[in-house]
Amino acid sequence: MRILARDIAGYIGTEIVLNGWVHRIRALGGISFIILRDRSGFVQLVMNEAPHITLESVIKVSGIPTANEKAPGKVELLVRSWECISSALPDLPYHVNGRITKQNLETILEQRVLSLRNPQINAIFKVQATVIEAFSAYLRSQDFTEIKTSKIVSSGTEGGTELFEVEYFGKKAYLAQSPQFYKEVLVASGLERVFEVAPVFRAEKHDTPRHLNEYISLDVEMAFIESEKALIELEKQVLAHIFESVAQKHPHELTLWNAAVPDSESVFKSPIISYQEALNIAAEAKQSRFFDITPEVERLVCEWSVKEKGTALVFINEFPSRLRPFYTYPLDGSLTMSFDAIFRGLEITTGGRRHHNVHAFIESLEKFGLKAEQMAHYLSVLNYGCPPHGGFALGCERLTARILGLTSVKEASLFPRDRKRTTP
Amino acid sequence: MRILARDIAGYIGTEIVLNGWVHRIRALGGISFIILRDRSGFVQLVMNEAPHITLESVIKVSGIPTANEKAPGKVELLVRSWECISSALPDLPYHVNGRITKQNLETILEQRVLSLRNPQINAIFKVQATVIEAFSAYLRSQDFTEIKTSKIVSSGTEGGTELFEVEYFGKKAYLAQSPQFYKEVLVASGLERVFEVAPVFRAEKHDTPRHLNEYISLDVEMAFIESEKALIELEKQVLAHIFESVAQKHPHELTLWNAAVPDSESVFKSPIISYQEALNIAAEAKQSRFFDITPEVERLVCEWSVKEKGTALVFINEFPSRLRPFYTYPLDGSLTMSFDAIFRGLEITTGGRRHHNVHAFIESLEKFGLKAEQMAHYLSVLNYGCPPHGGFALGCERLTARILGLTSVKEASLFPRDRKRTTP
Repeated sequence: MRILARDIAGYIGTEIVLNGWVHRIRALGGISFIILRDRSGFVQLVMNEAPHITLESVIKVSGIPTANEKAPGKVELLVRSWECISSALPDLPYHVNGRITKQNLETILEQRVLSLRNPQINAIFKVQATVIEAFSAYLRSQDFTEIKTSKIVSSGTEGGTELFEVEYFGKKAYLAQSPQFYKEVLVASGLERVFEVAPVFRAEKHDTPRHLNEYISLDVEMAFIESEKALIELEKQVLAHIFESVAQKHPHELTLWNAAVPDSESVFKSPIISYQEALNIAAEAKQSRFFDITPEVERLVCEWSVKEKGTALVFINEFPSRLRPFYTYPLDGSLTMSFDAIFRGLEITTGGRRHHNVHAFIESLEKFGLKAEQMAHYLSVLNYGCPPHGGFALGCERLTARILGLTSVKEASLFPRDRKRTTP
Repeated sequence: MRILARDIAGYIGTEIVLNGWVHRIRALGGISFIILRDRSGFVQLVMNEAPHITLESVIKVSGIPTANEKAPGKVELLVRSWECISSALPDLPYHVNGRITKQNLETILEQRVLSLRNPQINAIFKVQATVIEAFSAYLRSQDFTEIKTSKIVSSGTEGGTELFEVEYFGKKAYLAQSPQFYKEVLVASGLERVFEVAPVFRAEKHDTPRHLNEYISLDVEMAFIESEKALIELEKQVLAHIFESVAQKHPHELTLWNAAVPDSESVFKSPIISYQEALNIAAEAKQSRFFDITPEVERLVCEWSVKEKGTALVFINEFPSRLRPFYTYPLDGSLTMSFDAIFRGLEITTGGRRHHNVHAFIESLEKFGLKAEQMAHYLSVLNYGCPPHGGFALGCERLTARILGLTSVKEASLFPRDRKRTTP
């Protein structure tokens, strides 16, 4: 039976079988040292020959685990026999065992099929899987129901801009830029608390380290809230659970990226500042004026928070209505019950309370130059008993990128989609 | 603080607050009985008045829970005060509290925003959430990593037919009909074992109770298998865990549909029969010949299995190569290491071992009239060390539909997409 690399110390002196990829080969006289890689880690193989084998080939080896203080993991396998299961071509277009600090992002993404094998890159997606698992587990523990809503839609939630068009049996359809409308339908359906983990699609022309044209949105919506503050409290709990889970399951992956996650205490004490306060903090730091929450403001506000509050997570609320979608609930004439979360200098969440009163909603539409007739689908939710509600969306790649300190969100997408990239 | 309907028995004699939807109203002289619905269930409210309120309105009530043998749940709330939070229009276009046996599917889907409130319909999606949760949990327990792959792709995995076209910044792209290629990249990346829960898109013209143009695919792929039998064993474990979880969490929802899930013992003893045997069994049952696994054959084979083996789950393997995609691993000249799972008369899974040897793969391509140059992306996986591997995909809506005995898979999709439907 096959044993995994991480378990071999339990088999010292017993012949076992390992399967994996040839990560590194070093020949010293008549002895060869091979580092074998499997899903669980690495093992050093010792062979009394110079095997004809290429890097990245998949092999099966039999041998006896033996203690060796100098070997990685302090146990190595003395090989009795081996066979090649799948031979790799000798000229690798990408150095899987190389250090990624010496590689540019373009190469990493062009050679995605091989670059995903690099242990440091591979680690990103083990962490991301735990982000998704912990997000879902915490919400389930709070009585949220997981939903899966359609991605082919007849119009955009946000009013029709930046949509990808789909040819749907001779008619035009679009890719959903958010499950916003469907989340609200399901809150009002009586589920009250829902979450969704799914792709969203944004036909934005930006090509920056902050943008993806397709990304995984971690969406939440809940009924019976009075303001966005309940959502911020929920998001703190969600993030604290995600960080704890990543810390517990991925000490090795965090080390590879020289990264650490915030502790729960620092998450819970994260400040809530208003939009205007955020601009003031940035203005004071730079001695210049800002008129919107730009990427620079996000960085400055986080720097302020780290220094003054001891946390790199900041919530900004009370955004002006002109900056938020038409479904956002007003705080007063010009401000809204909405918020962003900024983590380590990057916006990772947008959220807020939404309109639930049909009359206030129609009034709000007019301010946005929209007509009630265009919003018949929204009216069908609000006209038949809709509780006060709100929600938020966490960008999965952005959160993963800020946990590990990646320079671009593209690094946190298995197969990123940007202006020029639809392959691999 | 708000109390949920399911918890009121713990508050007898204490004034509490409930929030929810007005499900039913019955006035008897000066007393009104209202059934209030929240995410946890129902409570009977007793009011000494005839309140001006419409069905489906959202209300907040204060009152005192009191034991009453005749009330649903044996506890009712004597209302002290109440207020309307969101008033529903009096003419509901759909009777939320009606019996769905009297409604046709077209009405249910047209009025989706309201029909999702019907407790029996709502229950479908509570069960579906558990199907997804249990699928993911079992695979995580077996060292599988959750992946999220791009849905915008440059070409189809299966060879280019039945793809929805997307306008991508002036170029043509498509919606992924399967994550097949990406699953294989990730198996070969060293993750070895991966799963994905995500939408897939099929531009099939069929409009039947078995088909959706967008559905949730529960995808699995794993390395180091010798044949499809290892995948069938894994699927039995996955299904047993799903059924156990549904039985444990949803006795109420199962009762609403008069449904029951198979026990683990019957799942584990499910037979594996070959494609040819399946045709023979159907032929014997109907005294006529069959030339493919048609819906009728699926039903007949399940009937045979229930009678002869005591289980409504059947695995069919050894499909002819001409019926399987080009990446399927051969068993011999004309048969393949592939399988379908049929559950209660409906195919819920297709799977199999895949090619991992590049030479055999290229040979196989030729038989399908495909050229290696068209498959450069596949070669980039197989050329650089690829373990023997395989996987399968479970249709989430189909499985949910067969668990509950729904007549159409459309009923198991929150917002189904078919030939004519892109709303709501």
